[in-house]
Amino acid sequence: MDAISVIRTKRDGGALTERQIDWVIDAYTRGEVADEQMSALAMAILLNGMSRPEIARWTGAMIASGERMDFSALTRPTVDKHSTGGVGDKITLPLAPLVAACGAAVPQLSGRGLGHTGGTLDKLESIPGWRAGLGNDELLGILGDVGAVICAAGDGLAPADKKLYALRDVTGTVESIPLIASSIMSKKIAEGTGSLVLDVKTGSGAFMKSLDDARELAAAMVELGNDHGVRTSALLTDMSSPLGRTAGNALEVRESVEVLAGDGPADVVELTLALAREMLAAAGLPDADPAKALADGSAMDHWRRMITAQGGDPNAALPLAREQHLVTVPATGTLTRLDAYAVGLAAWRLGAGRARKEDPVQAGAGIELHAKPGDAVTAGRPLMTLHTDTPEKFGYAQEALADAYDISPKGTEFALPPIVLERVASP
Amino acid sequence: MDAISVIRTKRDGGALTERQIDWVIDAYTRGEVADEQMSALAMAILLNGMSRPEIARWTGAMIASGERMDFSALTRPTVDKHSTGGVGDKITLPLAPLVAACGAAVPQLSGRGLGHTGGTLDKLESIPGWRAGLGNDELLGILGDVGAVICAAGDGLAPADKKLYALRDVTGTVESIPLIASSIMSKKIAEGTGSLVLDVKTGSGAFMKSLDDARELAAAMVELGNDHGVRTSALLTDMSSPLGRTAGNALEVRESVEVLAGDGPADVVELTLALAREMLAAAGLPDADPAKALADGSAMDHWRRMITAQGGDPNAALPLAREQHLVTVPATGTLTRLDAYAVGLAAWRLGAGRARKEDPVQAGAGIELHAKPGDAVTAGRPLMTLHTDTPEKFGYAQEALADAYDISPKGTEFALPPIVLERVASP
Repeated sequence: MDAISVIRTKRDGGALTERQIDWVIDAYTRGEVADEQMSALAMAILLNGMSRPEIARWTGAMIASGERMDFSALTRPTVDKHSTGGVGDKITLPLAPLVAACGAAVPQLSGRGLGHTGGTLDKLESIPGWRAGLGNDELLGILGDVGAVICAAGDGLAPADKKLYALRDVTGTVESIPLIASSIMSKKIAEGTGSLVLDVKTGSGAFMKSLDDARELAAAMVELGNDHGVRTSALLTDMSSPLGRTAGNALEVRESVEVLAGDGPADVVELTLALAREMLAAAGLPDADPAKALADGSAMDHWRRMITAQGGDPNAALPLAREQHLVTVPATGTLTRLDAYAVGLAAWRLGAGRARKEDPVQAGAGIELHAKPGDAVTAGRPLMTLHTDTPEKFGYAQEALADAYDISPKGTEFALPPIVLERVASP
Repeated sequence: MDAISVIRTKRDGGALTERQIDWVIDAYTRGEVADEQMSALAMAILLNGMSRPEIARWTGAMIASGERMDFSALTRPTVDKHSTGGVGDKITLPLAPLVAACGAAVPQLSGRGLGHTGGTLDKLESIPGWRAGLGNDELLGILGDVGAVICAAGDGLAPADKKLYALRDVTGTVESIPLIASSIMSKKIAEGTGSLVLDVKTGSGAFMKSLDDARELAAAMVELGNDHGVRTSALLTDMSSPLGRTAGNALEVRESVEVLAGDGPADVVELTLALAREMLAAAGLPDADPAKALADGSAMDHWRRMITAQGGDPNAALPLAREQHLVTVPATGTLTRLDAYAVGLAAWRLGAGRARKEDPVQAGAGIELHAKPGDAVTAGRPLMTLHTDTPEKFGYAQEALADAYDISPKGTEFALPPIVLERVASP
């Protein structure tokens, strides 16, 4: 077995054999297959595709490259959620304690942001004292006690994926459905959750720009999960506009706490509840009532205990950016479009995201939206507020926003798209 | 400008801009673009292709990555030959002194073999004392004095190509017509020859298995050469059977000397003369008579002077392998097929070639053919002799030869294909 023959098989449009896949993932993890060989293979996979059996074997090989966690000691059923990433997507923050409040255990192993989509850990790190890194025993302890934990994935889970993801990021080989599906699912399956709900986003602010691609990715992941004994379903959700009224780290934590307090933007509440119901059904708790847990304060209680258990102070003031810049409405009418990608890019330029893994993020940077698609707007009134510690970036962020929205004359017919577009489950 | 955006352009089927090509070749040569990025780009080029203008710019950028030699001080016209490589292809050895004997100067910068095709330098190094490495002054001196030199290309010529070729070799990205054409032509144009004849081989023993691919490669290279002011034409030649009656280093030198002595296998003589006429016409010497130079000993005289100028002893005995193994004819009839690839692979396994750049080759190893396609053969008589210093490889070589030939009953109609299939020149 050698790397060149594996690369040639896929390059020439063939299917990789089980032996080829097992060997190449193992040899790459051990450093016997070089980065330049794996990137050529990744490009051949991106351009020539992989069949469902190839994706399944590839995922299995990545799981086998590391350890698998075991939550069988817990008395509560475990359920996790994964989002493919979007702008203003803070849903994990209210969702994990909400689902815990309803009786499930939520081991939410998360990542940091790269590019225009934010990272859950970056958001939580804006809470003074909170730390993302936990040992396995600590993780299990919090999960048994509070029922929800959001933390960084350990290095031992799917190390092949870690190495391959970093490589794809610098070689233009991220946008491949087989590689995305196997990357997400190898981590989630190795994590040991009993059930899983996928939030697959589509629209300008998502990796999958088209509904067809989102549907294909969701179907591949649902099959992978169920084949590995993880009860898995997916919601396809809209990411043409930002979720909620904030994009940025501390700004999104503040909005999440509003949702937990029974308030918050309607779209964030709607998606949080939809995902909570899907998770609770997957966990075998179809009668739980997440709307009640939001209303009666039990979700907020779980949030406070979860933050405290990881060293955070839920009462501490959240960081504010040093400078703000107000963008006003240019013309009276109805806001008919607010582009998620443009808002994400502007928030990133203001300092909310990072260009390279080793870059820091600004806790206070980001964008507050004073209007959402469908809202009536009046010329001269606030449209959005830009927040940053580096005000020299205001102009650069405004460039990204130049063509980010449309305002139609008052009285234009306008229908908001639904948040949840489709549900994908095993046949 | 960044590597990922260049990779994405080609990955998504677009044409690279002149600025992208200039930047990526320069940045790769300087080490700013990493190997894993260039291999992903190479795979995208292999699968999505490059247009003629892209190939031209890519070639120009590789030439610009290093120095360009200058033969303008020579009084004779310069002309070079390049073969895309085949089994038993020793043509350079008799051809360079033959063309020099007819009045042109032949600066033949050559390479070593990799895989199943032999390398010209490996063959000449079986002559005691002969050395491949020459300084520029020494090269010019021999060229002015003898008129022919065969030596290793200096490190200063197209360094981008050197780096890229080594990368393609380990990443399954060799078999791309745009990358092959630009690699060959960047070296040949940087070498500074005034005119160039390409021997583009097709058939089982060649890189281009189909005549269509060979034609496309030849046309791309002819256009590149002429666009850069090098008068360039190509012959498409057959490589379904080995050339001549030997494959291996010292074995092929011996056969080349037979050709220079006015003897040798008909196919080697025919191709040597065809290429010599093409080269002499390209050099502006259409009235020279290479057949006469073979017959009157002047080509042999130039060979001896060329070998001597590089430290070799043209009278020395050539190395013989320690052991020989005779393969006999299994059935009486007519030999109708003798597969070039299988013979090349067997010679390689006997020690004539190398698997990795740093491996040594055996000077005496290889295969002698006692019959060629079209010959009548008799059961039990010699078919071929295998030569090696490592007799434990005999079985391994015989495996490669198991399905290498067909013998048809006596009297079967059989027509040998012509050696020269087509000529490709500028329109």
